[in-house]
Amino acid sequence: MGSSLKNRVKPRIYKGTRDFLPDQMVKRNFVITIIKQIFEKYGFEPLETPTLELWETLAGKYGEEGDRLTYRFIDRGDREVGLRYDLTVPLSRVIAMYPQISKPFKRYQIQPVWRADKPQKGRFREFYQCDIDIIGSASMLAEAEILATMYEILIKLGFHNFILKINSRKILKGITEISQINPDKEIELARALDKLDKIGPDGVIKELIDQGIERKKAENVITTLSMSGTNKKRLSQTREFLKNSKSGLAGIQEIQDILYYLQLYQIQEENLLFDLNLARGLDYYTGPIFEIVVSEPKIGSIAGGGRYDKLISLFTNQEQPATGCSIGFERIITIMDELNMFPAYLSYGAQILVTVFDNDSIPYSINLVKRLREEGIQVDLYTGNSTLRGQFGLANDKNIPIVLIAGPDEIRENKVNLKNMLSGEQRTIMVEQVVEEVKRELLQIDK
Amino acid sequence: MGSSLKNRVKPRIYKGTRDFLPDQMVKRNFVITIIKQIFEKYGFEPLETPTLELWETLAGKYGEEGDRLTYRFIDRGDREVGLRYDLTVPLSRVIAMYPQISKPFKRYQIQPVWRADKPQKGRFREFYQCDIDIIGSASMLAEAEILATMYEILIKLGFHNFILKINSRKILKGITEISQINPDKEIELARALDKLDKIGPDGVIKELIDQGIERKKAENVITTLSMSGTNKKRLSQTREFLKNSKSGLAGIQEIQDILYYLQLYQIQEENLLFDLNLARGLDYYTGPIFEIVVSEPKIGSIAGGGRYDKLISLFTNQEQPATGCSIGFERIITIMDELNMFPAYLSYGAQILVTVFDNDSIPYSINLVKRLREEGIQVDLYTGNSTLRGQFGLANDKNIPIVLIAGPDEIRENKVNLKNMLSGEQRTIMVEQVVEEVKRELLQIDK
Repeated sequence: MGSSLKNRVKPRIYKGTRDFLPDQMVKRNFVITIIKQIFEKYGFEPLETPTLELWETLAGKYGEEGDRLTYRFIDRGDREVGLRYDLTVPLSRVIAMYPQISKPFKRYQIQPVWRADKPQKGRFREFYQCDIDIIGSASMLAEAEILATMYEILIKLGFHNFILKINSRKILKGITEISQINPDKEIELARALDKLDKIGPDGVIKELIDQGIERKKAENVITTLSMSGTNKKRLSQTREFLKNSKSGLAGIQEIQDILYYLQLYQIQEENLLFDLNLARGLDYYTGPIFEIVVSEPKIGSIAGGGRYDKLISLFTNQEQPATGCSIGFERIITIMDELNMFPAYLSYGAQILVTVFDNDSIPYSINLVKRLREEGIQVDLYTGNSTLRGQFGLANDKNIPIVLIAGPDEIRENKVNLKNMLSGEQRTIMVEQVVEEVKRELLQIDK
Repeated sequence: MGSSLKNRVKPRIYKGTRDFLPDQMVKRNFVITIIKQIFEKYGFEPLETPTLELWETLAGKYGEEGDRLTYRFIDRGDREVGLRYDLTVPLSRVIAMYPQISKPFKRYQIQPVWRADKPQKGRFREFYQCDIDIIGSASMLAEAEILATMYEILIKLGFHNFILKINSRKILKGITEISQINPDKEIELARALDKLDKIGPDGVIKELIDQGIERKKAENVITTLSMSGTNKKRLSQTREFLKNSKSGLAGIQEIQDILYYLQLYQIQEENLLFDLNLARGLDYYTGPIFEIVVSEPKIGSIAGGGRYDKLISLFTNQEQPATGCSIGFERIITIMDELNMFPAYLSYGAQILVTVFDNDSIPYSINLVKRLREEGIQVDLYTGNSTLRGQFGLANDKNIPIVLIAGPDEIRENKVNLKNMLSGEQRTIMVEQVVEEVKRELLQIDK
């Protein structure tokens, strides 16, 4: 061992990041498997992009705060690089770099992203994002496909009582026009409105005034946005307010198209909410924006996205309509854990532990292991130096439901002892029957 | 759109990293699925660790070159961090941090790692590693389990004619003892021997002399290492040479145990090679080391690993025996691609494209899509604005084998037109039969 290997350091993890041990991995894999399966059922294709992007690719795409929260450094060749901050900007770079990709391009991407933020409870510096996007479609059918996909995922994971909130940046633009607010303030208006639930109407008005918007205009906007009743009623009220804004009317038409299509997908009207308060923080949205909110229990937003028709043109002179949605993977895991939504028995690692009685019994035990693995059964062979008792302990710790024991007596008679760790029952069977008997036990355990 | 979003930059990727478009992702996923499935069949459990590790965790573990090639930077809170360089050191930190993990602990880990290296053909700055390790077993059964796992993976992927080369750091230590080479030079000896194939015996001797080893001793070592014949013959010759080295004899015994166990797993003797020239570059190995080399076609090493019984004690005062192996995922993908080893038809994304004839036909098309997705079939709904001809073109580009068309005539008669893109055949069927007919066509395409 090299001399550099002699200094002991305390084992510590970088704050805000996590190790996922097998008991957590199995839950994460359970959710990712469902998400991928449904993404693919809806015709989305997989994509992965590098962790490191040139800084110029990321710079300015997420607003000032995003720039500040991006991990970045200079590499040994003096290149400034940043860690992937989301999956949308890398996708846009890919679309610009490979014009040969046929459109509409439906892609899914499941990869970690990084935020150079202060870690807090439930907020991490490294976390997974799961995104779907459709590039090259200006039709609201694209939004409908994306939202129907997300809807099916949430149902499949066991969520009920969620609301799809929908709005449009074009409507927000219309509101600035009609209210005679400086159009440069559109993003500020959106950001302030996004906080309506948190800070209330007075808070939002104050924030708008701070942003240089006159009090009267600010109050007028808040009054406009305070609507109630069905989506139909809200939409017609908003259309009336925006009747002299081309952008506003286009936004309304798009929302109507989406709501119409979603009904064709048999998504219930009561789960859909046209919500003028929804704004979403990111700079790059240009059309419909949406969020899925779980209302019972009250856990807030677990998916969100929108249309960003201009983002790709920052990398190429060819414009590409684009829309997408990100599902809050980490939130979903946390919530499903808290609410006990995972199946009771999630298998990972071995279903069988084959014990090793002593050195002489190793060939017999290896033979057992081989027989079972040839049938595709997940089997662990004990490689430690504990007694049988210790080996049972390991099976217990790892939730391995069946243990096979072959000591000198069993070996002499070509037998094996099968212990069901759940019931505690133990019986001796012939080696020829081991595959059959193990399969039968596993079937019963699955029930 | 914010003003920061107005500067166009050329879309470029950071050199030495890659985008994986769907046609590559499907191949990568094909291989990863097989690897995971066999890892789990052998009782290994999943683990993931963070991309960012504290620099103190990584520092010095991979030798001087490793330190140099680790991406590292200072975060905003003045913490020095590094990007994951391999999967073994993070595993060791995890074992030290969570003593409650039951042993032996068999874990697998499939994650990218980074090297701050000059990119070259086939050498990347970001690439995946797939590792299995067994922690807490001093028995050579652990090595046998790991090697049997790797063996089955390679067979399943379609590799034949590969050789498992095996040696031991204890034997190398024995050689320094018997040859009276300074034991501090063991790593340098190992590194020089590792190059025997590349630079020949004279080159190695020269390198050893450069490292301060006397010419006579260096020549003596090279003569000793030049053996031929069966493993049995090589082992007894080496035992004779090392008969006065306790470490050397222990190393030989371990190799004999491994070879004996592997025979019990029915791994053919002709695929196993006790190879005194095998040394492996990393500092942390302490016992058996191994590499799997594909000999026909000659493509070199595609898996490698060894025992590292001291590494974990760098993080805790509790020693833990440990051994593991890494499979060369990126090399495997490259080779399988070059040798056409992937199945001819690897499905990804949609199996069916449902066209949209015009706006009026949208409800009918959505209904078709819904019917098929409810049966678990992967379906894309066309969301672009091309004519039917363009929609066929998209199906063609994406290798979608079946296209469904419903124009006004079909809709009126509750029918749909099914086009098989491979045969070019087209026929009209009733909507009620669409699931059944599509399934039948897909079955035939799979054959």
